[in-house]
Amino acid sequence: MRNGLGFDAHRFADARNPRPFFLACLEWEGNGVEGDSDGDVAVHALIDALSSATGLGDIGTLFGVGADSRGAGMRGEAMLRETLRLVHAHGFEPVSMSISIIGNQPKIGCRRDEAQQRMSQICGCPVGITATTTDGMGFTGRGEGLAAIASVLVRKTVASA
Amino acid sequence: MRNGLGFDAHRFADARNPRPFFLACLEWEGNGVEGDSDGDVAVHALIDALSSATGLGDIGTLFGVGADSRGAGMRGEAMLRETLRLVHAHGFEPVSMSISIIGNQPKIGCRRDEAQQRMSQICGCPVGITATTTDGMGFTGRGEGLAAIASVLVRKTVASA
Amino acid sequence: MRNGLGFDAHRFADARNPRPFFLACLEWEGNGVEGDSDGDVAVHALIDALSSATGLGDIGTLFGVGADSRGAGMRGEAMLRETLRLVHAHGFEPVSMSISIIGNQPKIGCRRDEAQQRMSQICGCPVGITATTTDGMGFTGRGEGLAAIASVLVRKTVASA
Repeated sequence: MRNGLGFDAHRFADARNPRPFFLACLEWEGNGVEGDSDGDVAVHALIDALSSATGLGDIGTLFGVGADSRGAGMRGEAMLRETLRLVHAHGFEPVSMSISIIGNQPKIGCRRDEAQQRMSQICGCPVGITATTTDGMGFTGRGEGLAAIASVLVRKTVASA
Repeated sequence: MRNGLGFDAHRFADARNPRPFFLACLEWEGNGVEGDSDGDVAVHALIDALSSATGLGDIGTLFGVGADSRGAGMRGEAMLRETLRLVHAHGFEPVSMSISIIGNQPKIGCRRDEAQQRMSQICGCPVGITATTTDGMGFTGRGEGLAAIASVLVRKTVASA
Repeated sequence: MRNGLGFDAHRFADARNPRPFFLACLEWEGNGVEGDSDGDVAVHALIDALSSATGLGDIGTLFGVGADSRGAGMRGEAMLRETLRLVHAHGFEPVSMSISIIGNQPKIGCRRDEAQQRMSQICGCPVGITATTTDGMGFTGRGEGLAAIASVLVRKTVASA
């Protein structure tokens, strides 16, 4: 059994130049975040946690950094599916995942079940998703951006891994 | 075995309108935090971690949000005990918990053993509590508020869970 | 099996009074952080996670706080080695560790393998290290300081532990 932790934060896009809003493999109403990919902080934190647990580096190792990177323009779900393929090829399988989303919006509660079911189906293990605000404090509290922390358990599927 | 992660932050109450200070199931000297419940960030983060690990949603699912919610006016310890009943009823038992408290006060060190013993007794498993400051940086460093990150391991008690 | 979580943050030293830059048991180019020890936030967060998982308190319990403390002037690696001795003496062994470093610099990617190998060798278990920025937001985004979150799994080596 191995554990992995990941963190990510993205800035909300300027309202004069709004972007679609992807989070936890769902599209949400409202203005999304800046970023070369779709800026899904829940998925990005989870990819870091999975990479960390399995020796794959981090999201930058797997998809590059910047507008010319392989990850530019990629949807979080596609990045997650590719990461999971690498995790399995590397001799591991996910056991359990938990993601804490920090920010003023979206209100996760009303679509938590949908997000958890979708991500659990993609990942092949239970995925718990919680959300909280920071009482108006810090960059998440001021509504500048969104952050997520993810934690995973994985286990080896082959002795040689 | 499943893992769960939770985060919470609360703003310190205005000194002209001080509140009792609850943290990690203890009452501390000094001014507490704003919030509809007792604002115990250590317990709230832990409840999110437990809910996430066991498919119960998060603290908002269990106790509602806002001044009219069921959680309004509740002590963190009572919320934690009720969460643990739901965790057990849902077919899980806690294995291990760890909470990191981030803020300038209170000084946890002098009452860490007391807090750990109390929370371990309530939870029925080891609970580790650490505390750190942020060198005057961010909302915790400026003394605006207090944050906590919690991580838990739980295991299924029944095959059907 | 027990889990542990730890967090740490340090402020970058004033450029007019630069300090050597230690992170994840490596020395990096550029200006380091303030602090009575070497300010290695990755190691400090990891020590908190290990202490929390094994009932040893936190880094303040083990090495004191402030310029007169035992930890003052200590390198993170020496503190980590001493913590690991205590973890083993307390009847535990590390199973897996994961550290997420949050800040604008250094660029971890180019020396991730070196850092992971060094820390894995010291700790006697896999150590995953990821790094992320916060899109210019918060104290890490403004370049004021550096933060790290660490997560560990440990297991008992003796029944009586």
